[in-house]
Amino acid sequence: MESLTNCDEEEQPSSGMTNSWSKQEAFRGQMPKCAGGFVLVHAGAGYHSESKAKEYKHVCKRACQRAVDQLRAGALAVEAVTAALVELEDSPFTNAGMGSNLNLSGEIECDASIMDGKSLHFGAVGAISGIKNPALVANCLLAEAQKGKLSAGRIPPCFLVGRGARDWAVSHGIPSCPSEKMATKFSLSAYKRNKRKMELAEKMDAGQNQTKKKRQSSENENGSGCLDTVGAVVVDSEGNVAAAVSSGGLAMKHPGRVGQAAHYGCGCWAENACNMNSYSTAVSTSGCGEHLVRTMLARECSAAMQSEDAHQALLEAMQNKFISSPFLASEDRVLGGVIVLRCCRCVEAQASPDIQGAMVEFLWSHTTESMCVGYMSAQDSKAKIISSNRWKPEKIKKVCTMLPLWILFTLYVTELYIVHPSRSKM
Amino acid sequence: MESLTNCDEEEQPSSGMTNSWSKQEAFRGQMPKCAGGFVLVHAGAGYHSESKAKEYKHVCKRACQRAVDQLRAGALAVEAVTAALVELEDSPFTNAGMGSNLNLSGEIECDASIMDGKSLHFGAVGAISGIKNPALVANCLLAEAQKGKLSAGRIPPCFLVGRGARDWAVSHGIPSCPSEKMATKFSLSAYKRNKRKMELAEKMDAGQNQTKKKRQSSENENGSGCLDTVGAVVVDSEGNVAAAVSSGGLAMKHPGRVGQAAHYGCGCWAENACNMNSYSTAVSTSGCGEHLVRTMLARECSAAMQSEDAHQALLEAMQNKFISSPFLASEDRVLGGVIVLRCCRCVEAQASPDIQGAMVEFLWSHTTESMCVGYMSAQDSKAKIISSNRWKPEKIKKVCTMLPLWILFTLYVTELYIVHPSRSKM
Repeated sequence: MESLTNCDEEEQPSSGMTNSWSKQEAFRGQMPKCAGGFVLVHAGAGYHSESKAKEYKHVCKRACQRAVDQLRAGALAVEAVTAALVELEDSPFTNAGMGSNLNLSGEIECDASIMDGKSLHFGAVGAISGIKNPALVANCLLAEAQKGKLSAGRIPPCFLVGRGARDWAVSHGIPSCPSEKMATKFSLSAYKRNKRKMELAEKMDAGQNQTKKKRQSSENENGSGCLDTVGAVVVDSEGNVAAAVSSGGLAMKHPGRVGQAAHYGCGCWAENACNMNSYSTAVSTSGCGEHLVRTMLARECSAAMQSEDAHQALLEAMQNKFISSPFLASEDRVLGGVIVLRCCRCVEAQASPDIQGAMVEFLWSHTTESMCVGYMSAQDSKAKIISSNRWKPEKIKKVCTMLPLWILFTLYVTELYIVHPSRSKM
Repeated sequence: MESLTNCDEEEQPSSGMTNSWSKQEAFRGQMPKCAGGFVLVHAGAGYHSESKAKEYKHVCKRACQRAVDQLRAGALAVEAVTAALVELEDSPFTNAGMGSNLNLSGEIECDASIMDGKSLHFGAVGAISGIKNPALVANCLLAEAQKGKLSAGRIPPCFLVGRGARDWAVSHGIPSCPSEKMATKFSLSAYKRNKRKMELAEKMDAGQNQTKKKRQSSENENGSGCLDTVGAVVVDSEGNVAAAVSSGGLAMKHPGRVGQAAHYGCGCWAENACNMNSYSTAVSTSGCGEHLVRTMLARECSAAMQSEDAHQALLEAMQNKFISSPFLASEDRVLGGVIVLRCCRCVEAQASPDIQGAMVEFLWSHTTESMCVGYMSAQDSKAKIISSNRWKPEKIKKVCTMLPLWILFTLYVTELYIVHPSRSKM
C-alpha cells in the first residue's frame, strides 16, 4: 500500500493557537453564551478537472458557512448538517440535487440520508425524483420519526423511496421541483456523452473480444469521474454529532437503483459518546455506491474511530475494511472516500469550570483521484478548503487550533490518502 | 429478562443418531456423490391465531421441501434458499409476495433480499409492485452482479426500488403479475379493518388526550399481528451458506416505505467461513422493519455466531443489540425475530478421509408472541415444524442427529425465546 497525500490549501485557518488562547483569556470571567461547533464537508471523491475543482471549493466554502450560521444561531448538529447539505445540493456542479447525474432513462433520481448522533435516529430517501433537496426530506423523516408513533400505533417510516417518497415530502411541506429544472447544461451534455459511449461499447461488445478488453480498460480509467456525492459531518456546541450524505448516483444507472447515500450504515453514520464509546463520531462517504454499501464503510469507519490513534485507525479501516475487504474481492478497483469527525470532552479544559471543552479531530481518506473537503469552526471567519490530489507527494498536515469559549477545539487536519490503482498490483 | 421457551413439535426428525451412523457405515467404501445440505425457514415473528399457525406450518413444510429438492439436485445454497422463499411468498397467508399487507393507498409493495455467503454478493428490491416473487428479482440481481461490469464499465446495481425494479425484473424474464391478483380476501379484509381503525384513531386523536392514550395502548397490544415477514437460511453440500428474506412490510405503511427485508445487513446475512471467521453463518430476520434496520440485527447476530457458545451468543445479541439497544431506547416495545444457522467443518469427521463432515447448529429467537419455523436436512424424508409460543413454560430442546454421507450434521434445536413485553419493566 502506498500512502500519498497532498493538500492545496486555499486559506489559512482564521485562528492560530496563540491567537485563540489569547482570545480565550480575554473571555475568561465573562463566559459569554456564544455558540460553538464545527463542520466538515466534502464535494465528492472522484476525478475533478481543474475548473470543476474550483467550483467545488466555492460550494464547500458556502456549505461550511451555512452550517456555521446555523450553529451560531444555536441550532443542533442535525440542523446544521442539513443546511450544509442543502447548499451542496443546490450547486449545479455537484452530483446531488440540482445537476445530478441522469439515469439510463434520462431522469434524475436522488438518494440522501441523515443520522443524528444524539437520538440515533436516521432518515433516508432513495431514488426520489422532482425534489430539489433530498436532504430536506431525509431530515424531515428523521424529525417525524422522533415524534413517535403515528395514528393507530403505526411506526413512522425511516426510509422512503420513489414516488411514495416524493408524495410524502410534498405532504410535509417540501416543495416539488419539475425534473427538467434539476438537469443542468452540464448534466445533460454528460448524459449525451455517456449514452454515446454506452452505445458504442455495446456495439463493440458484439464485436471481437480484444476490442472489448481495450474499451473496458479505458472506461475504468475515467470511471471515477461521476462519483461526486456530497456530504457533511457536524458537532454542535452541546457536543452532539450528526452526519449526512446526498447523491445523484452513478451516471447511467438503472432507474430505481439506490446507492450508499440512502443505505443505513453505508452513506453516513453518527453516534454521540456513551457508556460504550468514549468518542462521539460522525462519518460521511462518497464513491461507488455498491462498494460502499457492501463494506458498510460509514459504520466501519465510525467503529474504528474509538481507537486511540484516529489517524492509524482510519488508515487501517480503509485498508482492511474497504480496499482489501473480502466483500469486494472480485472488484478490480475500489472507489471511495470518507470524511470522519470525532470528538470527546477535553480533560484539560474540564479543569477550569469556566470552559466546557471538547477536542475535535477530523480526517479524510480516499482511493479516488481527488476529493475536495472544507471545514470551519463556529469561531472561524471563513472556511478552509483543501483539494486532496492523488498525484502529489506525501504530506501529512497537522493544524492545532485551540479555540476559545464554550467549545475548545483541537483541530487535527490529517489527510489520509491511500492510492490503490489496481488490486492486482498489491 | 425472562427466558421462556416452548416448542410444539409437529413431527420427529426422520433420522436419529443410531440410524444415521448405521447408514453411514453402509455407505462406507462406496462414497456416493449424494448431495447434503440443510434448510431452516420461518414464516414470521408476530402474533398468529391458531388457524393461521396451522397454515404457516404447512407452508414452512413445503418451503423446506422445495429447498431440499434443490439441494438434492446439487444446487448451491443461494438457489435452494430462493426456492424456499418462492414457496413462502406464494402462500396467501404469509406477509410476503401473494397476500402481502396493503399499504395506505391499498397497494402491495414488497421488499426482499438475498445474500450469498460464498461470493458475499447481495441482491435486494424495495417497494416493488406487480411481481409475485420479489425473491426471484433479488436472486436475479445477485446473479447479474456476480457476472461483473455492464457495458461501458458500469457497475451493476445491487438494490433496485419501485417501478425501476419492476421494469428491470420484467426485462430479465421475471413475469409481472397484476397487483389486484396479489391481494387476497384475507389481505383485503385486513386492509379495510385497519383503515377503519386508523380513521377512528385519527378522529380520537382530535378528541381528548385521555382517550388517545387508551387507544394507543390497546393498539400496541395487537400491533404485532402483521409482522409475518418470511425468510430462510441454507447450507449446501459444499458448505456454502445463503440467507434470504421477503416481506410485504407493515400494514398501512406509507407508499414507498422500505423495511429491513431490503436493507443490507438488516434483513439477512450470510458469510462463508474464512481466515477471520471459523464459522459460516446465515441469518434471516422478521419483525418491525424500522427496529431491525436501526439495530442491523441480521449482521449483529451473524457476528455474534463466531463465539463458541452459539446459544449464549444469540441470547446476548438479542438482549444487548436488540432489546436493550441504545438505537431503540425511545421505543416502548421492540419487535423482532431471527433464525440463525452456523456451520463449521467437523474435526472428528475429517479424521476419516471418506467423509467430508460439517457441523450445523441452528437457533431462533423472538420477542414477538409467536414464531413459526421449520427445518429439514437433505437426508430427512420430511420437515420438522415448530411453533414457538411466548406463553408456554421454558423448554430448551436439543436434537443431535448425525447424518451420513458427504455432510455430517449435528443438529442443535435451540430455541431462544426472550420475553420482553415492556421496556419499562426491565
